[in-house]
Amino acid sequence: MKILFAGAGALGLRFAYMMHKAGHDIVAIDGWKDHVDAMKKNGLQAIIDGKDEGYLHFPVYHTSEVNQIKDNFELVFVATKAMGLKDMLKTIQPLMNPKTKIICVLNGLGHITTLKQFIAPENILIGTTVWSSGLGGPGVLKTGGSGKMDLKQVEEKNLDYTMQIVEELNKAGLNVNYSQNVYASIWNKAVVNCVLNTMCTLIDCNINEYGSYEHNYEISKAIIDEMALVAKAEDNVDMDKELVHKIVAGTFPIDKQGLHYPSLYQDMKNKRLTEIDYLNGAVARMGKAHNIPTPINAFIAHLIHSKENKNGNK
Amino acid sequence: MKILFAGAGALGLRFAYMMHKAGHDIVAIDGWKDHVDAMKKNGLQAIIDGKDEGYLHFPVYHTSEVNQIKDNFELVFVATKAMGLKDMLKTIQPLMNPKTKIICVLNGLGHITTLKQFIAPENILIGTTVWSSGLGGPGVLKTGGSGKMDLKQVEEKNLDYTMQIVEELNKAGLNVNYSQNVYASIWNKAVVNCVLNTMCTLIDCNINEYGSYEHNYEISKAIIDEMALVAKAEDNVDMDKELVHKIVAGTFPIDKQGLHYPSLYQDMKNKRLTEIDYLNGAVARMGKAHNIPTPINAFIAHLIHSKENKNGNK
Repeated sequence: MKILFAGAGALGLRFAYMMHKAGHDIVAIDGWKDHVDAMKKNGLQAIIDGKDEGYLHFPVYHTSEVNQIKDNFELVFVATKAMGLKDMLKTIQPLMNPKTKIICVLNGLGHITTLKQFIAPENILIGTTVWSSGLGGPGVLKTGGSGKMDLKQVEEKNLDYTMQIVEELNKAGLNVNYSQNVYASIWNKAVVNCVLNTMCTLIDCNINEYGSYEHNYEISKAIIDEMALVAKAEDNVDMDKELVHKIVAGTFPIDKQGLHYPSLYQDMKNKRLTEIDYLNGAVARMGKAHNIPTPINAFIAHLIHSKENKNGNK
Repeated sequence: MKILFAGAGALGLRFAYMMHKAGHDIVAIDGWKDHVDAMKKNGLQAIIDGKDEGYLHFPVYHTSEVNQIKDNFELVFVATKAMGLKDMLKTIQPLMNPKTKIICVLNGLGHITTLKQFIAPENILIGTTVWSSGLGGPGVLKTGGSGKMDLKQVEEKNLDYTMQIVEELNKAGLNVNYSQNVYASIWNKAVVNCVLNTMCTLIDCNINEYGSYEHNYEISKAIIDEMALVAKAEDNVDMDKELVHKIVAGTFPIDKQGLHYPSLYQDMKNKRLTEIDYLNGAVARMGKAHNIPTPINAFIAHLIHSKENKNGNK
């Protein structure tokens, strides 16, 4: 297949590496100039499970060079930050045809709405993944372990072709499961992020410290109760609230994610804009559209934005 | 009059200084040992408007020495931190008689409930003050400027005697106004604290930076809307919401309180327990008692407590 990796960060490159190894024809596009330049010059250096696998060579472009790309793609992986999705879709629109499928496993909520502005719902493969990855600097993929991915076509037409794609992804080792539970998975994952990312940032603590407050359940509950109502209205998901509380609490021990400072915490410290509008901010936005009050999630989104404003995050 | 200053911090001592100058018979009790020891040894050093007024001598006791006090008082000023009020009242209970009046102008909400556990409502003079003050170290009062105080007797019986007290306070220069608007003043002042103390702490900013976020009004509104409902139910106060928003916004400019970090912010940084249970925590508690939902104020109280827990505040 001809596959475009729209966003060549850690996770995008992990999948790019795997699909390239499996013999597919890949191209990557990214907005980080030093990173793009390094890959243009040397190729992508892949260090997998601590072993240097050498350099992979495939075409890489800066987002400003999109009109140099003459290909047309059967498959696009979007792998930007949540707030970069819309601009990336605008950028790559000329590279898609009416049959091009887009895989989107970005964290957060509200991406389907954005994707639908650019392609038909039958071409959107939405999902979640537990694959993780890292960069060792510009042009260096440094990753390991294994993972899996759940996908679902937003409008289920012509599924045969999608199943062929899924088969190709699985031949490359991506462990893709076509699942009817994708929406529930997206919301469960969003709950963890809407609670831990924001609370650790406002309390200024790691995940274990959040869990060490005796009434942490009440804090989580205030967020989750609103999310459950919005999940039902927006995606017809019946959130299992006791389960998601357990998932949240399961991260607290120090031999789990307890010592971790969530990504939004790190973005805040590093004066980067956060993904808040795709977490609690999206809950508030969707709640408003469905006439469901979401005072707590709206309030949290404002506090995080106010903190960005104070820090001068960009 | 024989007057007990129950709590000899900056504000208590400012009033003690004024009442002593006016010829009243004063005694002070406090829990800070070094401070009490300094005053026992040298007296209270008073630096007023930059001028050293020398040392004042009056009996000072540590709270553990309460049974050495043989007097019985006509008037008590309580001047503790909000969370210290109850323990102080327990401590000084033997020193009061059925006619002893207590003046309470502490910041925050819920003090009447605490006071009523110890004395009759007709003996409680509740109020607000804009007098401010400071300490220059143990045993040193360092203050200046002027102020005023609004007071109201919680149950208005035998007001003649109260008016005599007010007259004595005014002879000493305290600028006391017996006012029917005291409850509204308490709530207006509490609004400012419930918004700025907590938001500056969670956002980690000064008052000007809070005001610099373009949607600060929405943050304040979420807190104030709940408070207005509770103020009506608890104290029959018709809060003027537009006015309190203006009071809050009036603090933002850097030539007003803009560069100030509120007391709760400073308590948090200095690892002291905060007054949150007498601010947003009190709103949530009163709301619950009146069946008024206060999700935002309850949530804020939890976040502040969680932050205290993480910091190991004591």
